[in-house]
Amino acid sequence: MGEKPHTLTDLAEMIREFVKERDWEQYNHPLSLAISTSIEAGELLELFQWKTKADVDEALKNDAFRKALASEIADVLIYLLRVADTAGIDPARAVIEKMKVNREKYPIGYWEGRAPSRFNRPK
Amino acid sequence: MGEKPHTLTDLAEMIREFVKERDWEQYNHPLSLAISTSIEAGELLELFQWKTKADVDEALKNDAFRKALASEIADVLIYLLRVADTAGIDPARAVIEKMKVNREKYPIGYWEGRAPSRFNRPK
Amino acid sequence: MGEKPHTLTDLAEMIREFVKERDWEQYNHPLSLAISTSIEAGELLELFQWKTKADVDEALKNDAFRKALASEIADVLIYLLRVADTAGIDPARAVIEKMKVNREKYPIGYWEGRAPSRFNRPK
Amino acid sequence: MGEKPHTLTDLAEMIREFVKERDWEQYNHPLSLAISTSIEAGELLELFQWKTKADVDEALKNDAFRKALASEIADVLIYLLRVADTAGIDPARAVIEKMKVNREKYPIGYWEGRAPSRFNRPK
Repeated sequence: MGEKPHTLTDLAEMIREFVKERDWEQYNHPLSLAISTSIEAGELLELFQWKTKADVDEALKNDAFRKALASEIADVLIYLLRVADTAGIDPARAVIEKMKVNREKYPIGYWEGRAPSRFNRPK
Repeated sequence: MGEKPHTLTDLAEMIREFVKERDWEQYNHPLSLAISTSIEAGELLELFQWKTKADVDEALKNDAFRKALASEIADVLIYLLRVADTAGIDPARAVIEKMKVNREKYPIGYWEGRAPSRFNRPK
Repeated sequence: MGEKPHTLTDLAEMIREFVKERDWEQYNHPLSLAISTSIEAGELLELFQWKTKADVDEALKNDAFRKALASEIADVLIYLLRVADTAGIDPARAVIEKMKVNREKYPIGYWEGRAPSRFNRPK
Repeated sequence: MGEKPHTLTDLAEMIREFVKERDWEQYNHPLSLAISTSIEAGELLELFQWKTKADVDEALKNDAFRKALASEIADVLIYLLRVADTAGIDPARAVIEKMKVNREKYPIGYWEGRAPSRFNRPK
């Protein structure tokens, strides 16, 4: 793998190679990968189940919890990058484009300090 | 933002700045962000609802579908990067570590061509 | 518990008693229960991960799979009934009301045989 | 439909008839319905996004919120009952069986007043 890759392109390539080596491309359809992304997002959420914010702050001081959290974040990210890769979408570009939309949708002047809820969103 | 950022660190910074400008840090607790990640993963999956793989392949030729897909991938990624950022976890490093684990868990010799199902996993 | 309860009210009561006996009412806030419902829906989906429809049809002949499926259906239903119970909502009535809405939204004449996708919905 | 049905069997029949009238049985495979259940559980969770427990308690006094909540509970329940129906599983029985398992797994003596977290579960 050489030195640490840092771009999304590098990570996507690393994962693509892993899939290719196991001949798993046949299973990696965007539909199956979107299902897997959603399942893993549920597993990420499970780490927070029953916890208050204070409980989470406490848990974040614990190495086992941090390791479990990093592992679940990785799982969501791995499948999400596979969805993008198999669908031919550039995820970094998608984020940049979406943030432009978000900046227009949530102008600073109106939103500063207001909760980002859809229930107080001007329509 | 200047030129296109490509690393996860660059993207995370861009999003952090967006949040800071709106004084939304108070709402961006890892717990709330994990909830949002899961919700967005559901919206991503919704694009595939009722579709067969053939339907998805067809939809991927359609610009409106691709744009909607890029937008939902971005939403999941944005919240996921916020979970990582607010929890002090490096998502690129998390992926790299997880892929090491995956390479050991799924040795090429055994897994080549076998479906990655938990039901045929050697335990 | 006496004989098998069959109404949603009976099931909700059975679960409420279980919670009360463990002094878990303090944890059973609708917010936490909605999180748990979503996590369990992800676990239900996990049983279908990587499977084609044909794979699922085959799996449904297998007792271990059926038992796992019944267990995950139960988990989603249990948490969902708790959300409804703690929020003071009658789930049976909610379904009946929603089906009325659905009958109006999807008139038989137009929808017979068309896929229920939001992409071919008249707006 | 006649008078209000209250059992899960009655509700399942009502939904089955709705599906049949639109010739949607061809789309109602357990796999697709499990996907839909998960999507709807995400929409249920979305009603709680960004909210504290106090915010939720306040929102529950609001008719529009309660109506939206009842509608999302119904959507999850409708798809979940379809998963069970198409897979030939009795959901009421599944809940009753699962509650038996839960009573054994979480003995009152040990669990009374302890948070139902997997992190303090005796293994």
